[in-house]
Amino acid sequence: MLRAQFTHKGGPPDISLSQEKYAQALEDSEGLLWVDFQGESPEASEPVLLDIFHFHPLAIEDAIYQTHVPKVDDWESYLYIALHAIAYEAQAGELEMIELDVFMGANYLVTHHDLPIPALERVWESFQRDERYRKQGADHLLYLLVDELTVDFMKAVEEIDEEIGFIEDQVFEKPDNKTVKRIFALKQVTLHLRRSLSPTREVLNKLARDDYPMIDSRDRVYFRDVYDHFVRLHDIAESLRDMVGGVLDTYLSVVNNRMNDVMKTLTLITTLFMPISFLAGFFGMNFFQPVSAGLMSWTDNPSFIISMGIFLLTPVLMYYWIRRRGWM
Amino acid sequence: MLRAQFTHKGGPPDISLSQEKYAQALEDSEGLLWVDFQGESPEASEPVLLDIFHFHPLAIEDAIYQTHVPKVDDWESYLYIALHAIAYEAQAGELEMIELDVFMGANYLVTHHDLPIPALERVWESFQRDERYRKQGADHLLYLLVDELTVDFMKAVEEIDEEIGFIEDQVFEKPDNKTVKRIFALKQVTLHLRRSLSPTREVLNKLARDDYPMIDSRDRVYFRDVYDHFVRLHDIAESLRDMVGGVLDTYLSVVNNRMNDVMKTLTLITTLFMPISFLAGFFGMNFFQPVSAGLMSWTDNPSFIISMGIFLLTPVLMYYWIRRRGWM
Amino acid sequence: MLRAQFTHKGGPPDISLSQEKYAQALEDSEGLLWVDFQGESPEASEPVLLDIFHFHPLAIEDAIYQTHVPKVDDWESYLYIALHAIAYEAQAGELEMIELDVFMGANYLVTHHDLPIPALERVWESFQRDERYRKQGADHLLYLLVDELTVDFMKAVEEIDEEIGFIEDQVFEKPDNKTVKRIFALKQVTLHLRRSLSPTREVLNKLARDDYPMIDSRDRVYFRDVYDHFVRLHDIAESLRDMVGGVLDTYLSVVNNRMNDVMKTLTLITTLFMPISFLAGFFGMNFFQPVSAGLMSWTDNPSFIISMGIFLLTPVLMYYWIRRRGWM
Amino acid sequence: MLRAQFTHKGGPPDISLSQEKYAQALEDSEGLLWVDFQGESPEASEPVLLDIFHFHPLAIEDAIYQTHVPKVDDWESYLYIALHAIAYEAQAGELEMIELDVFMGANYLVTHHDLPIPALERVWESFQRDERYRKQGADHLLYLLVDELTVDFMKAVEEIDEEIGFIEDQVFEKPDNKTVKRIFALKQVTLHLRRSLSPTREVLNKLARDDYPMIDSRDRVYFRDVYDHFVRLHDIAESLRDMVGGVLDTYLSVVNNRMNDVMKTLTLITTLFMPISFLAGFFGMNFFQPVSAGLMSWTDNPSFIISMGIFLLTPVLMYYWIRRRGWM
Amino acid sequence: MLRAQFTHKGGPPDISLSQEKYAQALEDSEGLLWVDFQGESPEASEPVLLDIFHFHPLAIEDAIYQTHVPKVDDWESYLYIALHAIAYEAQAGELEMIELDVFMGANYLVTHHDLPIPALERVWESFQRDERYRKQGADHLLYLLVDELTVDFMKAVEEIDEEIGFIEDQVFEKPDNKTVKRIFALKQVTLHLRRSLSPTREVLNKLARDDYPMIDSRDRVYFRDVYDHFVRLHDIAESLRDMVGGVLDTYLSVVNNRMNDVMKTLTLITTLFMPISFLAGFFGMNFFQPVSAGLMSWTDNPSFIISMGIFLLTPVLMYYWIRRRGWM
Repeated sequence: MLRAQFTHKGGPPDISLSQEKYAQALEDSEGLLWVDFQGESPEASEPVLLDIFHFHPLAIEDAIYQTHVPKVDDWESYLYIALHAIAYEAQAGELEMIELDVFMGANYLVTHHDLPIPALERVWESFQRDERYRKQGADHLLYLLVDELTVDFMKAVEEIDEEIGFIEDQVFEKPDNKTVKRIFALKQVTLHLRRSLSPTREVLNKLARDDYPMIDSRDRVYFRDVYDHFVRLHDIAESLRDMVGGVLDTYLSVVNNRMNDVMKTLTLITTLFMPISFLAGFFGMNFFQPVSAGLMSWTDNPSFIISMGIFLLTPVLMYYWIRRRGWM
Repeated sequence: MLRAQFTHKGGPPDISLSQEKYAQALEDSEGLLWVDFQGESPEASEPVLLDIFHFHPLAIEDAIYQTHVPKVDDWESYLYIALHAIAYEAQAGELEMIELDVFMGANYLVTHHDLPIPALERVWESFQRDERYRKQGADHLLYLLVDELTVDFMKAVEEIDEEIGFIEDQVFEKPDNKTVKRIFALKQVTLHLRRSLSPTREVLNKLARDDYPMIDSRDRVYFRDVYDHFVRLHDIAESLRDMVGGVLDTYLSVVNNRMNDVMKTLTLITTLFMPISFLAGFFGMNFFQPVSAGLMSWTDNPSFIISMGIFLLTPVLMYYWIRRRGWM
Repeated sequence: MLRAQFTHKGGPPDISLSQEKYAQALEDSEGLLWVDFQGESPEASEPVLLDIFHFHPLAIEDAIYQTHVPKVDDWESYLYIALHAIAYEAQAGELEMIELDVFMGANYLVTHHDLPIPALERVWESFQRDERYRKQGADHLLYLLVDELTVDFMKAVEEIDEEIGFIEDQVFEKPDNKTVKRIFALKQVTLHLRRSLSPTREVLNKLARDDYPMIDSRDRVYFRDVYDHFVRLHDIAESLRDMVGGVLDTYLSVVNNRMNDVMKTLTLITTLFMPISFLAGFFGMNFFQPVSAGLMSWTDNPSFIISMGIFLLTPVLMYYWIRRRGWM
Repeated sequence: MLRAQFTHKGGPPDISLSQEKYAQALEDSEGLLWVDFQGESPEASEPVLLDIFHFHPLAIEDAIYQTHVPKVDDWESYLYIALHAIAYEAQAGELEMIELDVFMGANYLVTHHDLPIPALERVWESFQRDERYRKQGADHLLYLLVDELTVDFMKAVEEIDEEIGFIEDQVFEKPDNKTVKRIFALKQVTLHLRRSLSPTREVLNKLARDDYPMIDSRDRVYFRDVYDHFVRLHDIAESLRDMVGGVLDTYLSVVNNRMNDVMKTLTLITTLFMPISFLAGFFGMNFFQPVSAGLMSWTDNPSFIISMGIFLLTPVLMYYWIRRRGWM
Repeated sequence: MLRAQFTHKGGPPDISLSQEKYAQALEDSEGLLWVDFQGESPEASEPVLLDIFHFHPLAIEDAIYQTHVPKVDDWESYLYIALHAIAYEAQAGELEMIELDVFMGANYLVTHHDLPIPALERVWESFQRDERYRKQGADHLLYLLVDELTVDFMKAVEEIDEEIGFIEDQVFEKPDNKTVKRIFALKQVTLHLRRSLSPTREVLNKLARDDYPMIDSRDRVYFRDVYDHFVRLHDIAESLRDMVGGVLDTYLSVVNNRMNDVMKTLTLITTLFMPISFLAGFFGMNFFQPVSAGLMSWTDNPSFIISMGIFLLTPVLMYYWIRRRGWM
């Protein structure tokens, strides 16, 4: 889908701009043109980017063919910025980064992405409704777009935080292989998150600090503000990663403890019953049968009383011995 | 709660300053105005900050809406500083960081926080009682406030240290799942602490080094002193983290050792009794019954004496064999 | 194998250039000579490099005798660049790095490698067929060669990614020693990959940034593009390494869990049968034989019914006790 | 204890200098005054430091009230240096760092510490006996003091090294909970050591490199020498930490191996005796009693011979089966 | 042993130079003097270094008394360089670093070491035989010496690599405590290696980059070459360390797996035989004796057939149940 909006001096937007009119719109130095490619095929995108906007072939290749970590390239009369929009589904535990390629010139913004991005959609609509989105040039529009992206990042981060808290409880209650699977899925999610946030932070740092002629010095303070958001997001992502690591360690400790308890019980039972089982077997031997020689007295009443005493005493003594060694 | 104190040339403070008089107080270049917002709603705070103090909207947004890692922003005629006050409850093992936003201008200090901060309260009271708190300008007042914050950090760090020592003892005595829970809670606490101390240290480094016009060069040495405190705090926090890590490793080793002991006992008991139980079972077979053919002699007296020998010798031999392999 | 191609002003290449004509070709400042040594012995290569191209003995030694991490050396009138071509066999899990030594001068490119490199082969053929490969000088030809190398890196990285996914599934299904072997082989592969990508990235960074006179400033943007590819490759390699680490942790957790299950069953069975086995042994003792004194009533019918009750009740009670402790 | 030594032009020291004479001694620009506070109360120290030496209140606070990581502060006419003296007791495995605060001016040295420091004591005595300690000014005296501190560090490091070697042997022989305790105590010791050495190294780096006017450029080479010592000490401390880590890993592997051996024995015994115990029990059933119907032949002589064969064969077969699986 | 060689303008070396002639040789600015101290006592070395070469006392102390990490000190008219020669014995798994102290002036080289160094011996002999070693000044001789040292490093690194491969195989075959010992010995070796290579690399980096007047700019390219060797060596050492870490992890996984197998067998055997052993015991009770009341029918032929069925069916059912849970 290829769509465009155009405003002259922040006036009401022209949303029915056909592709042929782009070049004309670009000539209006007081206008602001926003062209958005969503899921457009390379074959359809390339001619527009090349022939109308005259972007460098390598920049176009970056935008339409390849997957990138966030970065910003200065092509003198325009900036090429690769960003990530977050798409997190808490139920499935799946974190997807949607690449958003932005070309920003003095009076235009070109956005290119394969999948729909809710944050961009919200800014697109605000551009139509809200004068403030149209009035302050392409650099401020870029700021508003990036600021909106952080909202979704924040939300995803909070959901991941909740999920970790949920699993943390589960670990102490009923840990099994599914818990392991979820912990490792979360670990991948936090790694993925951190890997995207770190270069995005760098991009915003550059936009806030460097002297790109396209970015008004007055607007730089806004980018610094978004940069601070990303510093904080990165910080939280680090915390989340540490928390997931902690959950995994806890899980291993809990499983270990449980195994320990099981082993103690096994040992206790074995230790209590093995000696007296042997004794029962002993008196079941045929040496003490009526026919055998002279050993009948071993199965007399006094022997029986002694045996019963051993049967009752052995477990009690064993139990105290075990307690003294501190196992129970 | 919104409250203010004003002093002219360090004189006795006017503590009943109404909101309308703030603007007038700000015009007194030899005065010192301290306005404190505690748990005030954004709706009530924003107009004061915007209309009376004329702070930048982004700085106000930082202060009243958002949660931040400690940072310092230079807005030319004033500094915006985000700090953390610590709130640690040793019993619950809960560490909370209360955000404290400070705006510092040439002759005023504006503090904003959602929860009450004991350290700030102490400085607020000293400001009324003690002339030295009023005489040396807004930058020195800021120093006194930050210095007071470190006192609570120091105290929390000591409590955490004690708690670790306590758990360390417990690990060697009677470790269970509760011990694991406490260790992991402490791990989170130390991580949290470190994550807050690290940027706070940076903020104080900047205040001590950079040339902010609001900070008198004479006062910079005081900020360097607080900076040294935070360097030390950060250092201790690192130690605490390592110690918690050590406690966890110890715990796993102790549990492992205990398991080992349990297994050895199980094996010992099984090894001692299995062979002689079999023998008892052997002589309980019906082959040696009166009716059966020719095997009666197997249950004669000599056999019995030999069997008894085996019953007594087997455990002894087994025990020595096990000892020789070094298990006991 | 020693072979050469020569083009004058990007015209059709002369592919039958004998060794004697190299010096002459080098004098044509508008020509472009590409000489390729493949698996040539040092004795055969050295004189050509030394006498015709006049390379520094140390640079020649680097190229023909030694194995290097990727690097770039500036020898004033030419660059010596050591690169790696990847050779990954997914089935065997073997990753080989083939060293590719490149000398780049104003109007020539000398490549030296011991094993055939498919990417180089593809560029060699394109040079013959495609005018664009011949027209833009040695630096652009170097770019095309490096760009082609990244294609193979990308492919290998994808295959490793798939392999990891495959093993991840296996870990949850049927982990054994072979799984361990494959995980550790993959770990070595990702380490190897990262170790090669990291310096290669640096080489391209230098080619894109530094002012080597041999590299046209117009072409620097192309090297920046390849540099971005390697940044991304390095990033993916990091992810892969983390994923392999995660798989190993998962493996250990799964094995641990499985062991736990096995132990629980063992304990359950032992706990259920040991007490009743003892009881059976107890009533098998010869105290209750017809001939023995007065204890016959112990084997009366009421005793039997009570015993049967115990036989049935004990396992049931044991089972509930175990469940209550949360082991099953 | 407060004591002082004074020398004029390196002449014989005046060791009976009363507190009142300090000011006078300081005025002698060719003299060298060394004042040492040992375990002096803050109340007693502060006036001397403040009124006689005129140190900055913050520097005094650093010295007498607070605990610091090693650092150096430049107060223009003097340096404040916080250092650590090591106190290691090998038997108890306790490592203590004694803070040594030094103020160094053009012609004086003030040292402040709570506990006695043997290294300082040695230098104090040499100052009285040995002319070379008095002749080269305060900066050289500081060098001699720091150099003496390294001697104790070196000794402690060697003792720790020996202790690690001793425990390493123990781990392979008879590891128990006490071994774990000692390993973790050593881990803390090496962490503690490293944490102190790292900032001390920085202090000496500054003294050797920076242009403090109090330090003669001729003496800087001596501080570089001590700096090299601390680089090496830090390096050894790193090694020690790695070695302790290795000992812990070894310990866990050894315990694991031992557990494995124990389990194998348990399994072997159980596997050998369970089947034949069942068989013995089988032939002990009352089905084969004289009175029962037609099953008497099961306990005939041929059956007995077959049973005996099974009794002898089963363990042998089991044993070979276990061997073939590679467990013994 | 103290020995010396002298050459004038690269002419045949004078190898019988007595100690008294050193000073004279040093005055020949076109000569080249190489003095080697091997295992010489400090008492014998110090006067030569101090009185003839006039080295700084600290530099001499570094050379003859102390152990150092590799470093280079610029003493204006000469360089002091501490290097390591490697001595690795594969059989014993012992890695020793022999310190080699070098003083390099404009026309002399002084080497000092406690133990014989084969690499130095080889260069010493080449100096006598080969004119190229004598002709290019002290800096080139130093290069030749360092280059020769790398040969031994390379060899040691290869032997360690082989050793790791050997142990890796052993881990999958027959791991025991000896394997653990060898793995940890190798770990120490790789740590030791890395710790020596890292500063050596820095030393060569300095020699290749910095402007030491003693090093001819023409020779700097040779030091850069050796520097590249050490970069590579360091890189391999890192790989080796990772490989040893991998071997240890593999070892633990293999032992864990083995334990798992053993436990499964134990559980299988116990699970198969415990129920039927109980049943055998059950029918061995005296309730079913001829004299007891009315229970004789329990040992009738039909009961026997049912019991035999249970004896045969129980293990089969148990086995299938276990298989279904995926343990075998």
